[in-house]
Amino acid sequence: MMPSMNRYSIGVELGGTNSRAAAMDENGRILESISIATDLAAGRDQVIGDIVRNILELKAQIGEGSLAGVGIGVPGFIRMKEGMIVGSHNMPGFDNYPVRDDISARLGSPVILENDANAAALGEKWMGAGKDVDDLVLLTLGTGIGGGVIIGGQVLHGFVGMAGELGHITVVPNGNPCGCGNVGCLEKHASATAIESMANLLALGDHVTAREVYELAKGGEHRALRIFERMGEALGTALASLINIFNFPLYLLSGGVLPAWEFFAPSMIQEIQRRSFTFRHTETRIEPATLGNAAGLYGAAYLPFLATAKR
Amino acid sequence: MMPSMNRYSIGVELGGTNSRAAAMDENGRILESISIATDLAAGRDQVIGDIVRNILELKAQIGEGSLAGVGIGVPGFIRMKEGMIVGSHNMPGFDNYPVRDDISARLGSPVILENDANAAALGEKWMGAGKDVDDLVLLTLGTGIGGGVIIGGQVLHGFVGMAGELGHITVVPNGNPCGCGNVGCLEKHASATAIESMANLLALGDHVTAREVYELAKGGEHRALRIFERMGEALGTALASLINIFNFPLYLLSGGVLPAWEFFAPSMIQEIQRRSFTFRHTETRIEPATLGNAAGLYGAAYLPFLATAKR
Repeated sequence: MMPSMNRYSIGVELGGTNSRAAAMDENGRILESISIATDLAAGRDQVIGDIVRNILELKAQIGEGSLAGVGIGVPGFIRMKEGMIVGSHNMPGFDNYPVRDDISARLGSPVILENDANAAALGEKWMGAGKDVDDLVLLTLGTGIGGGVIIGGQVLHGFVGMAGELGHITVVPNGNPCGCGNVGCLEKHASATAIESMANLLALGDHVTAREVYELAKGGEHRALRIFERMGEALGTALASLINIFNFPLYLLSGGVLPAWEFFAPSMIQEIQRRSFTFRHTETRIEPATLGNAAGLYGAAYLPFLATAKR
Repeated sequence: MMPSMNRYSIGVELGGTNSRAAAMDENGRILESISIATDLAAGRDQVIGDIVRNILELKAQIGEGSLAGVGIGVPGFIRMKEGMIVGSHNMPGFDNYPVRDDISARLGSPVILENDANAAALGEKWMGAGKDVDDLVLLTLGTGIGGGVIIGGQVLHGFVGMAGELGHITVVPNGNPCGCGNVGCLEKHASATAIESMANLLALGDHVTAREVYELAKGGEHRALRIFERMGEALGTALASLINIFNFPLYLLSGGVLPAWEFFAPSMIQEIQRRSFTFRHTETRIEPATLGNAAGLYGAAYLPFLATAKR
């Protein structure tokens, strides 16, 4: 494939309240970017219309140049072949709707749909903390916990595209109930929401936020410190199993809970040490991701380049 | 690559008490096979000498034909690049010894070392229950629990070769202690050994074997039935996490505990149903493997063909 100076792609990250789109060249340089308010309440057609309009605006801003395609990171399980979202509670109306083909038809350009955490993992591999490896796992620690597995430089999709649902690994068999139907999912024991639930249980105050628990921990509050310790244990239990399963060189953490690294990392590492022979006998790295909340945008923009390189 | 009628490979499965070797053609037809007593007490050099002698004997029996190479399945963690076994309690003297290069030098043929469960998974993909898929997970339920992950038709190795240690996924965070240093490993809650431990705890008799527990279950003995139910729950918990991680089409079970399928499968499937959204929304198959204890031999013999096809 001949690289072209004028070749670019557009990445979109579709969020619950805000969406972002950026045009990037093959070196990951952002040519133009735009922020879009996602008005989910206005309904699916309005949201898709806004996305399409903004992509066309970006295209007009770029002017000359060949658009390799559009990559869109979305929350929820993706059926890759159909280009559909399934089981996304946050995006009513999108379930089982042909999002990819609709947007592609309106744009007249190829569109690739990808789970947002998978896109973030791919972004970190392309331009972030995973640049030097071909195989990595990313966990995004936010309201929930997303996961992405990069293997041989590509997203692990599984047979319909639902692979990498790492937030739903069972870490406490009789643990907290999860919206997915399970109990004891990682995301019910190590997300920002889990931190807030523990704060409630420990009577740290009414409706304390994860950020407030973090501030309390910084002040040495024992219950706040204990919460992050518990959260680190849950995370370490899942990471140890992932290390035993994949034996990858790199496991990345990102998301809103990341600033609390100093408080949850010690118990996390201790748990991994105890639970993974492989960790103790290899140079496995557990590190913070580096692209922050732009990782998904990078990954989404990288998707069309990857797809055309494969052809 | 031009297929040749006379091209063959030799697979070896190195076991604690018995080893087997077979020469196979590219269609998985067994041309010659041989059984070797593995005299571990006689020491490493004796064991390796026996293997080499038997491979040479097989080669002589075949006569004409071009040997693609030798694949050897061994218990323990494998460092692929170095061709070494690490952390194998069952094979004293082999740890950190250049097994692959030693055998290769003595034979004058290329040798590939592979973890025995990985080899079994590859065998099932080549000639067994996984023939129709490119991605599968195999769990071998024996004294311990081994695992192998096949992805895109190849063994998932990870960065040093230790991937697929599925028996050491944590299923009970405060569960039974394991030789790997962890507590609550799958193999401490769902192997033949785990069944025997539960039988002891439930006072089913002194030193009851897993087979005897199986016979008791067939007779309707309540504690025996409960043991398999518990074992199925542990297995289902691990499988649900694997399905959430991989979204593969096929998960295979093999090993000595397999005949008890009717007793552990109901609680296993129930647990997977509950713990995996992906399982509930896809056509994921959980099935018995079909090659029995020959799977590893097939996989070992397939390794040289795979390696030469990749070049």
